This record gives sequence, C-alpha cells and structure tokens, in this order.
Amino acid sequence: MNLDKTLVSFLEEDAFEKDVTTALIPASECEAEVVANEECILAGVNEVSRLFELQGIKMVFLKNDGEVCGEGETVMRLKGSNKSMLSVERTALNLLGRMSGVATLCKKAVGVTGRYGVKVALTRKTMPGLRDFDKKAAKIAGAWPHRHDLGDMVLIKDNHLVFCKSIEEVVGKAKESYPNLKVEAEADSLEQALAAAEAGADIVMLDNFPISEASKAIEKLRAYPVKIELSGGINFDNLEVYARLKPDIISMGYLTKSARIVDFSLNVIG
Amino acid sequence: MNLDKTLVSFLEEDAFEKDVTTALIPASECEAEVVANEECILAGVNEVSRLFELQGIKMVFLKNDGEVCGEGETVMRLKGSNKSMLSVERTALNLLGRMSGVATLCKKAVGVTGRYGVKVALTRKTMPGLRDFDKKAAKIAGAWPHRHDLGDMVLIKDNHLVFCKSIEEVVGKAKESYPNLKVEAEADSLEQALAAAEAGADIVMLDNFPISEASKAIEKLRAYPVKIELSGGINFDNLEVYARLKPDIISMGYLTKSARIVDFSLNVIG
Amino acid sequence: MNLDKTLVSFLEEDAFEKDVTTALIPASECEAEVVANEECILAGVNEVSRLFELQGIKMVFLKNDGEVCGEGETVMRLKGSNKSMLSVERTALNLLGRMSGVATLCKKAVGVTGRYGVKVALTRKTMPGLRDFDKKAAKIAGAWPHRHDLGDMVLIKDNHLVFCKSIEEVVGKAKESYPNLKVEAEADSLEQALAAAEAGADIVMLDNFPISEASKAIEKLRAYPVKIELSGGINFDNLEVYARLKPDIISMGYLTKSARIVDFSLNVIG
Amino acid sequence: MNLDKTLVSFLEEDAFEKDVTTALIPASECEAEVVANEECILAGVNEVSRLFELQGIKMVFLKNDGEVCGEGETVMRLKGSNKSMLSVERTALNLLGRMSGVATLCKKAVGVTGRYGVKVALTRKTMPGLRDFDKKAAKIAGAWPHRHDLGDMVLIKDNHLVFCKSIEEVVGKAKESYPNLKVEAEADSLEQALAAAEAGADIVMLDNFPISEASKAIEKLRAYPVKIELSGGINFDNLEVYARLKPDIISMGYLTKSARIVDFSLNVIG
Amino acid sequence: MNLDKTLVSFLEEDAFEKDVTTALIPASECEAEVVANEECILAGVNEVSRLFELQGIKMVFLKNDGEVCGEGETVMRLKGSNKSMLSVERTALNLLGRMSGVATLCKKAVGVTGRYGVKVALTRKTMPGLRDFDKKAAKIAGAWPHRHDLGDMVLIKDNHLVFCKSIEEVVGKAKESYPNLKVEAEADSLEQALAAAEAGADIVMLDNFPISEASKAIEKLRAYPVKIELSGGINFDNLEVYARLKPDIISMGYLTKSARIVDFSLNVIG
Amino acid sequence: MNLDKTLVSFLEEDAFEKDVTTALIPASECEAEVVANEECILAGVNEVSRLFELQGIKMVFLKNDGEVCGEGETVMRLKGSNKSMLSVERTALNLLGRMSGVATLCKKAVGVTGRYGVKVALTRKTMPGLRDFDKKAAKIAGAWPHRHDLGDMVLIKDNHLVFCKSIEEVVGKAKESYPNLKVEAEADSLEQALAAAEAGADIVMLDNFPISEASKAIEKLRAYPVKIELSGGINFDNLEVYARLKPDIISMGYLTKSARIVDFSLNVIG
Repeated sequence: MNLDKTLVSFLEEDAFEKDVTTALIPASECEAEVVANEECILAGVNEVSRLFELQGIKMVFLKNDGEVCGEGETVMRLKGSNKSMLSVERTALNLLGRMSGVATLCKKAVGVTGRYGVKVALTRKTMPGLRDFDKKAAKIAGAWPHRHDLGDMVLIKDNHLVFCKSIEEVVGKAKESYPNLKVEAEADSLEQALAAAEAGADIVMLDNFPISEASKAIEKLRAYPVKIELSGGINFDNLEVYARLKPDIISMGYLTKSARIVDFSLNVIG
Repeated sequence: MNLDKTLVSFLEEDAFEKDVTTALIPASECEAEVVANEECILAGVNEVSRLFELQGIKMVFLKNDGEVCGEGETVMRLKGSNKSMLSVERTALNLLGRMSGVATLCKKAVGVTGRYGVKVALTRKTMPGLRDFDKKAAKIAGAWPHRHDLGDMVLIKDNHLVFCKSIEEVVGKAKESYPNLKVEAEADSLEQALAAAEAGADIVMLDNFPISEASKAIEKLRAYPVKIELSGGINFDNLEVYARLKPDIISMGYLTKSARIVDFSLNVIG
Repeated sequence: MNLDKTLVSFLEEDAFEKDVTTALIPASECEAEVVANEECILAGVNEVSRLFELQGIKMVFLKNDGEVCGEGETVMRLKGSNKSMLSVERTALNLLGRMSGVATLCKKAVGVTGRYGVKVALTRKTMPGLRDFDKKAAKIAGAWPHRHDLGDMVLIKDNHLVFCKSIEEVVGKAKESYPNLKVEAEADSLEQALAAAEAGADIVMLDNFPISEASKAIEKLRAYPVKIELSGGINFDNLEVYARLKPDIISMGYLTKSARIVDFSLNVIG
Repeated sequence: MNLDKTLVSFLEEDAFEKDVTTALIPASECEAEVVANEECILAGVNEVSRLFELQGIKMVFLKNDGEVCGEGETVMRLKGSNKSMLSVERTALNLLGRMSGVATLCKKAVGVTGRYGVKVALTRKTMPGLRDFDKKAAKIAGAWPHRHDLGDMVLIKDNHLVFCKSIEEVVGKAKESYPNLKVEAEADSLEQALAAAEAGADIVMLDNFPISEASKAIEKLRAYPVKIELSGGINFDNLEVYARLKPDIISMGYLTKSARIVDFSLNVIG
Repeated sequence: MNLDKTLVSFLEEDAFEKDVTTALIPASECEAEVVANEECILAGVNEVSRLFELQGIKMVFLKNDGEVCGEGETVMRLKGSNKSMLSVERTALNLLGRMSGVATLCKKAVGVTGRYGVKVALTRKTMPGLRDFDKKAAKIAGAWPHRHDLGDMVLIKDNHLVFCKSIEEVVGKAKESYPNLKVEAEADSLEQALAAAEAGADIVMLDNFPISEASKAIEKLRAYPVKIELSGGINFDNLEVYARLKPDIISMGYLTKSARIVDFSLNVIG
Repeated sequence: MNLDKTLVSFLEEDAFEKDVTTALIPASECEAEVVANEECILAGVNEVSRLFELQGIKMVFLKNDGEVCGEGETVMRLKGSNKSMLSVERTALNLLGRMSGVATLCKKAVGVTGRYGVKVALTRKTMPGLRDFDKKAAKIAGAWPHRHDLGDMVLIKDNHLVFCKSIEEVVGKAKESYPNLKVEAEADSLEQALAAAEAGADIVMLDNFPISEASKAIEKLRAYPVKIELSGGINFDNLEVYARLKPDIISMGYLTKSARIVDFSLNVIG
C-alpha cells in the first residue's frame, strides 16, 4: 500500500475538492482540536496527521498511538486553512475512529491473554481496503497482525485439503516449494493436528476445538517444535478460558469484524 | 467509483495473485456454497458476484439483496476453478459481510421509524474507502443514503458558522451560488433552526436536540416548507422516541459506525 | 478532477519530456512574457500558473482572471529555466487560450442579459476533457456553470420522457428518490411545462420555445415557485429578445461550442 | 494515447456512472439515431462508435468519416440499453462535434489550396487533451497533421534561437544529434531562411512573411532541396493568395483554434 | 505484478500504437513462426502468448517452457492480423529472449549442483522491472527463486549488522517480531554463522567463504537444525567445487546478472 | 517515460515499503559509499541519484556518467536515513549495474569504430521496460541510440515487404505520408538497397551482408545521398572488419542483448 495514494483516495471518495459548503465561507487561518467522545485506545495518529499534512494543516499531538483516551479528552490540535480543515474533517475522523476501534478491542483482548503469556492475533477478516490500517491498529495495541495476505505465509485450510491427499502431503510440498516461507496448517481434529506437526508445520491452528479437546491437543502437540494457535468463534465471553490453555497464539476474527468506528469530533476554536 | 477497479484493489490488498497456499493444490473445477453463519439482511450480492466473475467463477443466487438470511442458510452457489475460488474467498466474504452488516442495522432502524412515516438516513460516517458500498447497503435496506459526499448538496454545520455572520447569510449565499443544489443547515438551537427555514433552507437538521426541544422545534418549523431532519446521538435505545415526533428524516451515524462484518463461510462441496 | 494530474497529462500529450528541439539549446535561466494577440477576457491564470510552477517556472501576473486584455497587452511575466519554459509554452498557451475564449463569450452574454436580471448559464456541451476548465471560465466571466455532470442534479429531457408515463410521474419519482437533489425538467410545450411545475420541479426549462410561446409560458409559470430556464438555439442574434422575457436563466450551448482558442504568444526576453 | 482509457475518462468527467436522471427510468432496449443539425464534414465515427461499444451499444453507420453531412441528415443508428445510451449521449456528441468541426474547417482549406498543389497542415495549437482527435480529424479531411508533439521532429523557433549562436549552428547540431529525425527551422527573414536551407534543414518555415517577401523567399529557396512551409496569421481571408505562391505546405493554427463543436442530436426512436 | 498491465507497458514503451511503418502496409491476416537462433532453454511461453493474445493474435506452441530448443528450431506458430503481429514482434522477442536467457543459465547451474543434491537459487540482483519474469524463468529451469522481495523473508546482512548489537540479538528480534516469516542471516565468519544458528535462524548464508572455510563451517553448522546457503562470487568456474561441500543452497547473482537476451526471430510466412 | 514513476515502480517491485529486515534495526543517520567491483564505464548516475533522493538520501558523486571506473573504486557517497538507504540499495545497484553494463559494451564498440569515422548504434533489442535506460547508457558512451520506438522513424523490414509490391513503393508511400519523419529501409540484397536509395530513403540498412557484398553495396550506394547502416550478427569478433568498410552506421543488437549487470556494492561506513 502506498499510504499517500490511499489517503488521497479516501479524500476523493468524499469529493473533498468539490466541497460546495466550504466554498461558501471566507478563507482564513484557524485552529481546531480533535476530541474523543468515548473512551478508547488511540490509533491512527500518523495516518491522520499525514492526511491533514497533505492538505497543508499542521498538527500537535496531545496523545500518542496506543494511549488510553478518556471521554472528552483532546487528542490533537490543528492549525491551518479553515477550508482545508473542514474538507478533510470527516475523512480524518472516520479513519481515526476505525483504527482506534480496532486498537481498543485488541488491547482488551491482550489484557486478557497477556496474563497467560498468550499472543492475540488478527485474522484476514478485515475491512476491505483497510487491511494495512487494521493490522497496524492491532500492532499498536500489542496484538500480532498475523499473516498480512495470501502471499506471505502458507496457511493450509480445510478448503485446500479437499483437493489434497493428506495434510502431511501438502505440508511437505509447502516446505519443499517455499524454503523462504513459514507453513501453518489448520486442523479440525487431533489426528490432523498431529499429522501436520509430524510433517514439520511451523504452526498448527486448532480450528473451533471445544475447550477439552483443545486442551488435549495442546498437550500432545507440545511434543513437537511447533507453535500452537487457537481460532474459531473466540470472543470476550470465552477468551480467558481458551487463554488458560496456554496456546502460543489465539486469533480472533471478532477483533476486526466487530470493531466500531470510535466517535471523535473536530471542533474549530477560531 | 469504478466498481471493477475497486474490487480488483481489494483482491490486490490480499495479494490474491501471490496465493502461495493455493499454488500447492492441483487445479480442478469445483463447486462451493456461501452460507450465512448468523441471521442478517443480505446485501452485496451484485458486488460479490462481480468479484467472482472477474476471476471466472460462475454463481447462482439463492437469496437476493434485501432478503432475510437465517443462520445456516445458503445464499449462493459457485462453480469454477478451485484456485480462483480460494484466492477470492476471503475478500468476497469480507465485503459481503460488511454490506450485510450495514443493511441489517438499517433494516432494523427502518422497522422502527417506518410506522411513523419517518425516513432513516445514513451520515458520511462511513468506512473509509467503502462509502459507495455502505450507501448502497442502506438503500437495499430501505434507508435513505443521504448526501453522498461534499459535492452533491450544501450542508452547513456549526464548524462553518464559526466563519460566517449568520445562518441566514450562508443559506442565502448557498441558494444564490448553487441554483442546482439543495441546501441543508444544521441547527443547534430553535432560533437557528427558524432562521435557516426563514432563509429558505431546503432541509433543517436539528442536531442533538433533547426530545422536548425537538418536539417544540418541529412544531414551529412546520410553518415553513422545509424538511426536518433529526440527528446526533440517536441509537436503538432512543430511536422510537424520536421517531414519534414525526420529523421527515432521522439520520444515524450509528448505522455505519457500529455495523459489524456479518459472518459468512464458503464451503467447497467438491 | 485532480488539477495537477490533468495538467501533467496535457504536458505528456505534447511529449514535453522528449522535446528534441529544446534539448539542442544550452541551459540557462531566462525571462519571458505572455502577450495577448487579441482582445479578450482573461481566464486560466491559476491553471497556467500551476502548469509552469510544476516545471519550476516562477510567474508574476499583470492581469487577473476576469479582466479585459487589450490586443498586445502583457498578461504575465515568467522566470526560470529556458528549457522548461519552452517545453511548456504551447500547452500553457493552448489552455489559457481556451479558457479565455470561453470567458470572452460568456462575458459578452452576461453583458446582454444582465440588464434584465437574467442569469446566463453553460450547458454540458463542453469540450471533452475540459469540463472543469470550461465551467470555471464561465464562472470567472460571471455566468452560471449550471449542472456539472450527470450526478449533481436531475434534469429530465425528452429522451427520458420516451420511457415514462408522464412528466409528473418522473418529477415525483425524482423528488422522492433524491431528497438531496434539485429537479429540473425540460418541456417542449406549455402543457408539459405546467405539469412539471405542478409536480414540484425546482426548475423548468423551456426548450426551443419561439419568443411568443416562451412569453406566454413564463407568464403562466410565474404562478408556481419554480425557476424558469430558456434554452435551445440561443445565440447573440436572439439573446436580447429572449432576455427581455425575464426568465431566471438562459442557457447557451453556443458559449462552449463556438468559443475559440484566443491567441497568446510567449516571448523570451533573454 | 490509449483510446479506451481516454474515452472512459471523458465519460467519467460527465459522471456517467452516477447519472441520477437515467436511474429514474425503467430499463429497456431501444433504438436511436444521431442527426447532424448543420452541414459538416463528418469525423469521429470510430471514436464515437467505440465509446458506445464500451457501454454495450451497437451501431450502424449511414455516413463515414470524411463524408459531407447535410443539415438534418442521419449519420448513425444505435441499438441497446436505453440507460447506457442516455448516459453516453452528451459525451459522444461533444466528441463527434469537435472532430467534425475540425474536419470541416480543414476540408474547406484543402479545397482552396489543393488547386495549387499545396498541402494544408495543422499546428500544435490544438485543444488540450484532444491532440490525437484534432490531428485525426485533419487527416480525415485530407490535411497533413504535421508534427504530433515535441518529440517527433526538430522545429527550431525564434524562442530557441535566442539561446544559440546562429540558425546554421542549431540546424547542424540537430542533424548530427538526431540522424533519425527531420529538422525544420522557422525563419523570420530571408537571410535566416537561406541560412537554414544552406545548413541542410529538411523544411524551412517562413513565419508571418508578407506576400511579396514570401514570394521572393520561395523563389530563392527553390535552389535548395528543402520543403517550404508558410505559417503565421493565415486564415480564409488570405489563404488563397498564399496558396498561389505554391509553397509545399501552409500551416494554419486557425483550423484548430477556431473550429466549433458541430451540433448533433441523438433522438430516441423507441 | 499485474501481468497484463506490465505487458501493455512494455508495448507502450515501444509505442506500438504509433507504429508508423506498419501503418504503411495493407491490412491482412497472416501466419508467422518464431524461431530460436541459438540453443537455449525456452522460458516465457505464457507471457509471450498473452502478449500476442492481448493484440488478438492466436498461437500454437511447438515447444514448452523448460524444453531445450536447438538452433533454428521453431518454437511457436502465430496467426492473426499482420499489423498487430509486426507491432508486437520486437517486444515479444525481447521478453522471450530475456526469460530464456535466465532459464538457460539456471538450467546449466542446476545440472552441476543437482548431482550433489544442492539447490541453485537466484538472488535479488535481477533486472529492474523484470523481477517476476527473472524469478519465473529460474523456476522453469528448476532453480529456487529465493526471496522475492524485501517483504517475504528476513535476511540480515552485514549492512544491517552495523546498526545492531549482535547477530543473535537481531535474529532473536526477527523471530519474535515475525512469527509468520523465515529468518535468514548472512555470516562473514564462522563465529557469526554459529551465533546465528544458535539464535535460531532458519537459514545461514556463508558469504564469500573460501572453500576450506566453507567446508569447516558447514561441518559445524550441521549440529543445528539450520539450512546452509553459500553465496558470493560463485560462477561456473567454481560452482562444482562449492557444490561438492553439499550445502543446502547455492545462490548466484551471476544467473541474472550475466544472462543474455537469447536471439529469436519472427518470420512471416504469408 | 515518467522517470520518477518508473523508479518508484522499481522500488515497489522490491516491496521496499515492506522491508521486514530493515524494520528490525534502530533508525539512525548514516553514511555509505558505492563501490565498483569490476572495471566499467559508469552510467546511471542521475537515475540512481534520483532514486535515493526520492527516499531522502543525499549524494555526492566522485565519478560522472561516461567515466572509467577501476575495480574497487568508489563512485558515490551517500548520507541519510539508514533504513531508507538499505531498502533502496539493491534496486539502485541493479539499475546502475545494467546501465553501466550497456555503457561499457558501447564504449568498447565506439573505440573500435571511431577510428574509421563510423557511428555505433543500438537496436530496439533492449531489455523490456528499460528502453530509455538502455538508450541513455548508449548515449553516455558515445553511441547513437537509434530509433527510440515504432513511432519516431519509418524502418521498413523484410516482414513488412512481404505485404508490399516493392521496396520503392513503400519508401515512396512513407515519404508521402510522413513529411516529418526519416525513412529507413532494410535491404537483403544489393538490388533492394539500390532500389531503396533510388526511391529516396534517408537510410539504407544492409542486413546480414557478408563483408565482400557489403563492400560492393557501399561503393554503389555512395552514388546516392543516403546514409548507410550495417546490421545483423555483428559482434566484437567481426566489428573492426565491418568498420573498415566505412559505412555511416553499424548497429549491434549485441550491445543490449549481451550487456551484463556490472557488480557494484553499497558499503555502510557508519
């Protein structure tokens, strides 16, 4: 992703160059501040800063990425052309809101699993077009972004296995074909999990395993030099129970699927 | 927005041409189905269809945009190259999930306000890069997408008024400058609302008005040929109370800010 | 339109990076001036300035957009690399010439109709690729640019009516579908004009109405809160006659269809 | 120029994918015809055809590029989706109108000079963004498009000479540097013209020479194997007088600077 | 890389749409064949096929990617528009020549190391803009493409170590930061190599080790579960000596730096 | 070619924004130098400088384009962010290596033919995507780049003649169609060569003529005002023999087909 290009595309989506309302006000320099309307973990400070900078607005941050913002707290101060500021406002707040929304959920999850030494990871269930932003928000909150896309790691899933002889065969082929890539295999049963580990997978993902079976599988898999990842239907209701099993990683689609756009306002001071 | 270009950019974000996992499986034709894992209003059928079609996959729909999907219901059947299908899967489900998430919330809101003859509207608090998709999902669910971007209607907000003499003056200037555009003014008080209506605004938005004040304002504004919109902090807890006041429109940032990515799965049948 | 991108595309059209002639001269700093070779209303000062600026040339304006330039008058002074200047020259003069050509005709029309309090408007009969420039030139000359494109206002024409029950029905549908957009209807007869006004159109355009019929229609339409636009075959031979009828707007395809590229020269001073 | 990309950019300029009016009519297949509202030389048939084809419309031509169209004559028939047709209509007519406008003027000029065996040529004073279309229209009308851009021939002008020792020196350098390119030199005096010819220029352009001096210069230049081009302030008032001097080429900025957008209409038949 | 877009950019580089020579010949359908003018391993069949296909030319292959072509052998037959064929010819042959040149060198290297069970690998010393093509040619010839770019594997080099405490520290940080990526470390000495292996690197690259030291290092490194790669100054003069040491991988910048454009001709048959 | 865009595309090819290794090192300012690992003619100094500059790195050159670099000589010094430097390193060296490789071969050829007053020229057998770079390298080394692409000169080859009556006819048509372009004809026999010269070709290329026949042809062609070019199978084994015949130009595909990527290193100094 080219950040500038993407940011400009967001502005263009809002037709910021055809802002018919702002065209009605007299041009002047002004100051403004961005305020959080709800408690959150702040994320997106650099992206939003760049967005304003691209339109010639200067910023001072009162809060950094990863910090807690209380309701009503001011997170940044802006200075520059009132016209530019108002045309960029909505796009900036939407992006800051999404990134902070993802960071807020991630931080909460990390808070739960951290006690057990377990990493929290995202999945690829991110908002279309916002993969880099969602992944970065996770990182800011201390979660592991996991695989960025289809090209940076092998991850063999049930839909792939339909077309293969066995999990061992695909894992073997993956290791042979890509000496430069890690190989992860999703397992639906203990047998599959052990076969994948046996075949040399770097990570085995236990998908939708009930607690007791996950527990048993983890125990057996610890005989292998393999990382263990739990995934599938994990949310804040059951996260701690799974974390207690001490897998290496818990990945949660929930973190990006249910993240809200946190509410921020931009207030012109004058 | 050029739909095809946008869809391809979503695929590229997932590096679908470098899918190292799918490269490991033997190529074959296969069938698959997409299943809803939770109840929702379906939205995005054409977009997802186009996404698959761009990769040579054929589809049959069992459900249309706007229909209710029960948990576990199959929404479409796919046929084509297994490799293409698996490389597109995640991108398609993410998009379908977002659009259905927005549609589901919108339909719920329309269900509440419809009894009172009140339109539900989106705001511009949409997901960056997904404006067109969010707006379309709203339309599918019977909500009014509202202003698409900064260029298609004048909407004077408090941040604009800081730089103007009065709301009358800006409304007047807007009407003079843009004979081709509707003019909406956001009002923070009854006085402002009446001044905007008096100046000939096409729509007056009562922003964050408590119920009793909103009620009073609506009554007085009905003396003018102006549409009345309520906005600000409206969610499912207070929607019906506001709807009973019978404004013309209630706009809710909530609908796009809190919409989830609905969970869908793609299952290869063989 | 992204101005910079468009300007660069104009330069690329002239292969300014492959200027084989300029490559033959020794590089040096130089000064030059742009002179109008015929009387005109100047338009395009910012665009041309940006074009030169993109190539590192500095400018001082002696005339501003909207001002009258006499034949032989110097409109701007340039300073910078002789090579850049000569490679940009033709593109700059062509653009300045077109914009000034449109502005010149518009100003002339505004001079005629202004006495009667009638606005002059462009149509969408602009030069392909130059919509924004043509519309801006009109604005500079005091004309109303009218609808920018197919997306910013409803304008129902005879070709649309072929597919509809009646003008009332489409106007109604338009008002219902787009609370954010103005609705204009083109009428070929008095009956149609009245029906459109009755149905609540914001603007009615009387297309190709002879003077006497236009006069009668305007009289009857004044009973409605509708703006009246005259259009079709209006040029400088009949403009004043139509203006005397005091419609709100007269739109003229002539202004962009017959505008010339005004002749400017760039002279290197040394 | 990539034709398809350019055509799509013209459509996008008119926001053809956001046509709010056409969205109101019921979809159906229909037929339509394009009619010339004034006599002209037709040009742009392939470009307009491609424009419609890109939107799925089929066409039959009744007239070809280069043919005379009488006022009221039908030039093509269209068949396809009414929505696509109406959204493309204006863009198509604008392009056809411009190309036919240029062709009409060129044909008229060729008619004058042809009797004397003199070629008519365009200059680079074309409409920004429409170079290829303007040049093609000229070709259709039997004129010579001349140099396409700054890269395909050397053309030394007075602004270049300011930075050089002499015209001989630059011509010599040009011939040495570019064995693959023709070299043309603009001359402001007989002496310069002869010096350029002596130095081996392929073409000498006599710029703004009064008739008598042009006549004398041509006579002397005929001693060299050089093509002679007349240019500068030539229009239909003085074209024939210059043509009688029998230069090889007469180039006229007038042809593209004063060309109008010829008036065409698209009529839906049903 | 988007293959089609890249191929079109190659055609545009040759201005294939402005082919002034081909414009002179009468259009007709014709047949042609591509002949290898020197012995080589063929690579690029799909890319060249796509290039011709994009211009509407049909092809039949007589040889496949990876096969040996003798001097004078026909590798494909073409059928289609003579104009398209001639405008594409040079671009197609250049690409086919480069890919076959890389494949030919790779195959030769694989022939040498294969006997010892050692993989041959490319480096990132590829032709700018042709990374994907060079890597694919290597794969066709049985070599390992190695890391595609800076994003798909960690490879710690001496220039990185300048800024770090120790190789152990960076390897450790890499493993912690990227659970999804393999970690390779370049070592300049036995000590560094062992430290990297000890720290858990997946691959250790012995850079520019003389034979005897490489031999000793390999022996010691075999105590670790690490892959061993030899690199630096390896060419066909010393390849076999290094291969006999039985590292896992030998990477050779030589393969892409010294690969020639193999000579192919396109002959029109008529 | 837009240089910046092309350079950025080279960086993107190497995913320089996703450099996972450099992300591991602490940010700091540093100095580095680029060293030639083999003797060569340096070419690409401006291109590589621009590449580094785009990433904020400053440079001082110790050697200029066209100068001889000895093995081990430092060619430039760099200063700036260590992270930017390391992410750009490989791309920069690959480009510098290719351009220097082409320049080195060209200079060697120019050294041979210069004594006989014969120009050395490239062909269009350049690396796909690197046409401008290959041509510029040739120029730096004193060779003639020849035709840049299919659009800047007519070059009639045997594949064109298949579709034409005679070489005279095509040469004549070319001269008539393109008064602005030079016309070259490739001849396979003395007869063809003379026919082309007779028809007024600007350059005749003797393709694959054995020495004795080339000698005879040159003698006869000298009766015409035509440039003579020898081409086909010329390399350093036979170059001097052909040069002694004193044609005007010798063009060699060899120069770009066999040019290597010269080996350069970037060494961080600290």
